[in-house]
Amino acid sequence: MRQNRDWKEIYKGLKDGNRVQLGIAFSLIESKRQADRDAAALLINECTRTSRQDTLRIGITGSPGVGKSSVIEKLGLAAIAEGRKVAVLAIDPSSSISGGSILGDKTRMQELSANQRAFIRPSAAGKTLGGVAKTTREFIAICEAATYDLILVETVGVGQSETAVYDMTDMFLFLVLPGAGDELQGIKRGIVEMADLLVVNKSEKDRKKLASQTALDYRNALHLLRVKDSGWKPAVKTHSIYDSESTSALWKNIKEYEDHINSNNYRLELRRSQQTKWFDELLQNELLEKLFSTFKNKPSDLEELRSRVSKMELSPIMAVRKIMDRLEINLKHQ
Amino acid sequence: MRQNRDWKEIYKGLKDGNRVQLGIAFSLIESKRQADRDAAALLINECTRTSRQDTLRIGITGSPGVGKSSVIEKLGLAAIAEGRKVAVLAIDPSSSISGGSILGDKTRMQELSANQRAFIRPSAAGKTLGGVAKTTREFIAICEAATYDLILVETVGVGQSETAVYDMTDMFLFLVLPGAGDELQGIKRGIVEMADLLVVNKSEKDRKKLASQTALDYRNALHLLRVKDSGWKPAVKTHSIYDSESTSALWKNIKEYEDHINSNNYRLELRRSQQTKWFDELLQNELLEKLFSTFKNKPSDLEELRSRVSKMELSPIMAVRKIMDRLEINLKHQ
Repeated sequence: MRQNRDWKEIYKGLKDGNRVQLGIAFSLIESKRQADRDAAALLINECTRTSRQDTLRIGITGSPGVGKSSVIEKLGLAAIAEGRKVAVLAIDPSSSISGGSILGDKTRMQELSANQRAFIRPSAAGKTLGGVAKTTREFIAICEAATYDLILVETVGVGQSETAVYDMTDMFLFLVLPGAGDELQGIKRGIVEMADLLVVNKSEKDRKKLASQTALDYRNALHLLRVKDSGWKPAVKTHSIYDSESTSALWKNIKEYEDHINSNNYRLELRRSQQTKWFDELLQNELLEKLFSTFKNKPSDLEELRSRVSKMELSPIMAVRKIMDRLEINLKHQ
Repeated sequence: MRQNRDWKEIYKGLKDGNRVQLGIAFSLIESKRQADRDAAALLINECTRTSRQDTLRIGITGSPGVGKSSVIEKLGLAAIAEGRKVAVLAIDPSSSISGGSILGDKTRMQELSANQRAFIRPSAAGKTLGGVAKTTREFIAICEAATYDLILVETVGVGQSETAVYDMTDMFLFLVLPGAGDELQGIKRGIVEMADLLVVNKSEKDRKKLASQTALDYRNALHLLRVKDSGWKPAVKTHSIYDSESTSALWKNIKEYEDHINSNNYRLELRRSQQTKWFDELLQNELLEKLFSTFKNKPSDLEELRSRVSKMELSPIMAVRKIMDRLEINLKHQ
């Protein structure tokens, strides 16, 4: 990034829906240079302060191979057909060894990515879940400023990243494959409870009957759970990318949910809780960063203890106690 | 817990393989009382200091419904048949809303849980991944002190919890269902790269052919990846709980891996890296705890900023900057 990049210029570009400025905004977010970070903070602050409340943020999760990308493409195209603008972010905090998917994101969602009313961002950089969550929140703020009104956040699998995405979206879709329903004891209650819409995907060819049975199993399981805080009763739908009516049914359910949270004012509650969680996470990350930089000035003690731990001369618990006993934290008066 | 519980008494009980003392040790770990935490630190320290290096720690992951519990039961029984003692811990950081699985852990692994040479601990308490990881590491230390030599750590899904479990185990098993292989572009490279053994489970009845095809797909995908740091070439196996030979093949592969990391001394390297990561995580958690308790004495400023954020008067980024500008961290000299 150029040193004197003017964030106001980028902000103006975003408001005009300029895709080049959108790309520049992302480079700014992901930059590690202090000047860029300062500019990014001001840009995000402006985007947040002036943010529209009528956008819809959807988190989409499911195991690898369940077909998340193709469902996102179909839903995105359905939304665009009704005049919306769609931004997609795929996050994958699990690929900490090498990063990236085997075939890469460019070969996925070809039709959607070619559409001028869609913007697709591949996996965010960052090794920690905190880093990914931070970048994703900033991505959402920027895309909404850039006039995108449907934000789709894709996350892989069923782990901690779901909770992170759940905390920053208005609606949560959980995709499963036909057949997984016969082992309901393996389905963790937490993930099913998070879903506003549960999709049994790849309901096609010889899997159609199995998909219906799976949907039934999930409907029965959902009966055991309480209604969500939003007052919304989650639906279970089968879906196939070869059956456009099934896509329409999903999209219709999403719009019903949107009407629901608008009419009972739950959307505002969601946004407030999203802001507060963003604050909490950011505070936590910044605190940690400051602490580690404190130790960076006196690394010898820390490194010596760490080395004794690695040689198994000292247990991690005792080593950490030694450090904590020396640490002082104060708040300056203002 | 009793105030004056003697951790040495518990430690002695563990060494004798006393299951009652094992249960008490877990209560001690999970207790929030300061006296218990101090005793737990001393107990864990002793367990770590005297730990055996000839145990095997296996992490097992896969989507809900893939059959992790039944594979663990079969593998556990195979290990016990050869004179080993097996400890199982299921962790599930994703169930942050209500916790627990729909049918509960007690109905799972019935045969294994009835066996005197097995110890099964249901999902660890703790809402944060850091908390779960901490408890799991302590669980491993305690079980190994209590003469268990095969430790199986089960985790749900494909997210951040895999990385956590990967960091504390010697071997990593990844379970998939037949059919998922036809969508290899959806499989994130990170999770496949982590696996030392990839199991296509539920290879039975009409899914047998599909399972073989899926195994082939994964084998081809693995060819694209490099050999692991351990020098081990990960295998892909089909498995069914109705086919005892397939269980034997899995167990045989696990023992081959064990021989491999013993012969090239990689086990020692693994243990050192596990200790260091434990140290890093613990330090991070303790630091955060101390910071939040610093704010607890002056909560007003923090709460006011947080409230302005929730009302969207102030962006999270600017609010956090205001806090960080006031924070001072020092190291006392010793």
